[in-house]
Amino acid sequence: MSPKNVVIVGATGAVGQEFLKVLEQREFPVKSLKLCASAKSKGKALRFRGDTLKVEELKADTFKGREIGLFSAGSAVSKEFAPIAARAGCVVVDNTSAWRMDPEVPLVVPEVNPKALQAHNGIIANPNCSTIGLVVVLKPLHDKARIRRVVVTTFQSVSGAGARALEECVEESKAVLAGRDFKRSIFPHQIAFNCIPQIGQKAETFQPTGYTDEETKMIFETKKIMEDDAIQVAPTCVRVPVMRCHSESVNVECAKPITADRAREILKSAPGVKVVDDPSKMEYPLATMAAGKDECFVGRIRLDPTVENGLHLWIVSDNIRKGAALNAVQIAEML
Amino acid sequence: MSPKNVVIVGATGAVGQEFLKVLEQREFPVKSLKLCASAKSKGKALRFRGDTLKVEELKADTFKGREIGLFSAGSAVSKEFAPIAARAGCVVVDNTSAWRMDPEVPLVVPEVNPKALQAHNGIIANPNCSTIGLVVVLKPLHDKARIRRVVVTTFQSVSGAGARALEECVEESKAVLAGRDFKRSIFPHQIAFNCIPQIGQKAETFQPTGYTDEETKMIFETKKIMEDDAIQVAPTCVRVPVMRCHSESVNVECAKPITADRAREILKSAPGVKVVDDPSKMEYPLATMAAGKDECFVGRIRLDPTVENGLHLWIVSDNIRKGAALNAVQIAEML
Repeated sequence: MSPKNVVIVGATGAVGQEFLKVLEQREFPVKSLKLCASAKSKGKALRFRGDTLKVEELKADTFKGREIGLFSAGSAVSKEFAPIAARAGCVVVDNTSAWRMDPEVPLVVPEVNPKALQAHNGIIANPNCSTIGLVVVLKPLHDKARIRRVVVTTFQSVSGAGARALEECVEESKAVLAGRDFKRSIFPHQIAFNCIPQIGQKAETFQPTGYTDEETKMIFETKKIMEDDAIQVAPTCVRVPVMRCHSESVNVECAKPITADRAREILKSAPGVKVVDDPSKMEYPLATMAAGKDECFVGRIRLDPTVENGLHLWIVSDNIRKGAALNAVQIAEML
Repeated sequence: MSPKNVVIVGATGAVGQEFLKVLEQREFPVKSLKLCASAKSKGKALRFRGDTLKVEELKADTFKGREIGLFSAGSAVSKEFAPIAARAGCVVVDNTSAWRMDPEVPLVVPEVNPKALQAHNGIIANPNCSTIGLVVVLKPLHDKARIRRVVVTTFQSVSGAGARALEECVEESKAVLAGRDFKRSIFPHQIAFNCIPQIGQKAETFQPTGYTDEETKMIFETKKIMEDDAIQVAPTCVRVPVMRCHSESVNVECAKPITADRAREILKSAPGVKVVDDPSKMEYPLATMAAGKDECFVGRIRLDPTVENGLHLWIVSDNIRKGAALNAVQIAEML
């Protein structure tokens, strides 16, 4: 790939900062890099490959001469600016939910549906962090045993709610440990030493179905990325007091016979997957193990005898890295 | 009930201390109270109804003249001493797993299977904390819609592993927040800001099936308490950095039609259950809400359209209280 003029939109956020790290670590061919954020971050300095770059305010003319745009500044920003960027010839890889369910926009996980990328019209959507970890592990099993239904419960880290949410969890934890009062402003309830069965900070996230937006995303994004509308997904998404990495307890029912050993064998040679599954050594995926890593980790693979061709899995992946920045940069690499 | 001579075995543990609190709060008719623990706690002073009681060492003659024994000092102690107590005429309510699956020993949750108590031979088993919260909520649904299968993922608090485990979580959390190293001695991995998909601290807890002992208990205890071997249970049990209360993400498949509204209606009038389920106000059960409370809380009740007569539930109960001490004292009250 010839070096590209890249722009990061939302450079000061948790995912924005990870974009910088991933571009450096993967030696992405960057000809020039522009960093954008909202007006209040204008002038902030960030480091990239030894240089100091000043954050600019996002404007309509930001995309002139830019070839690749990595977006992670919220849905409203992506809705407004991604089409502007695309018209200016800047291919957008968008980390928000703004475009994911648009039938014209490919929703891509490179290990799962790389071919979907070909049909893009200047905007490519990066899936939800909790969906990415799930589909990377489920796709190879689906190919061999055809998955019919997935019951999944997530344990999602606070960094998924952004850098300020992470900070709030740290400060609230300190306050609880010290027996001090704490006034929170991000999470709807105490997150320190507590589990909140709601992703998203507002009541509007609950749909008439009773599912949250996050759970609804998991249902539809899984079908779109796996390119199979017949896969049934029954999710419950929970915020836990973990800084980084989402864990998922996954129960799958397959159409074809499968054993735990066969699943382990399939997953051991699957792209982007790392099997950590040795109960005799108490080895299984953990958030502390997956943080900063590229792979989706899977373990606790065991037969579920209560249903035909049933399996349990425990999946952990870094929500900021594979769940966001890394997957987007992998998409950009394929362009 | 006439006042009884009561003995608490394991009085210095997390559940032991809760026994004292629950006996006081419920004004249990205690004629005299003896506190026992291992030799190393001998002489320790505990308060009960304004008196100071000295902890005695557990011995074979401990049970002479005692009428009710509340046991929570580990399986090995219960295996050895519960029959000795029973022979001495002291009815044992045992909070360990020692006797739960013995066909001669009733396994009782007063709201679910009170009649099972009648068949006791001096030993009554108190179920596992994660099972109690589950069956209190599932039984009324089972009575109306016949539950076929339950997929459950638990979020279990550290107090379930004992008072020292709770202390370890506090100290490790402080160390992580301060960026200090920490040498743990209870949990197999870091529990601070991490989720461990293993209950039990040793590799031996993993069965050849791949399930842990805790998961295996949930399967068999649920069938025994609900008095229906046809109920299929597929559990994944996870330790989370929460001090008190177990949360559970529960997916049920019923034989008969049921709606979310009907389930809510059934549960609102169910004994020992409190429905907290108003998404428009972001109200659902939380560990912080259930701590110190008697009821099993349930919310996020919604239809699961991926299976016939499917429902999602989010259940939270105090593992030390209803999950252990309260349930045992309720059993003693029924004697």
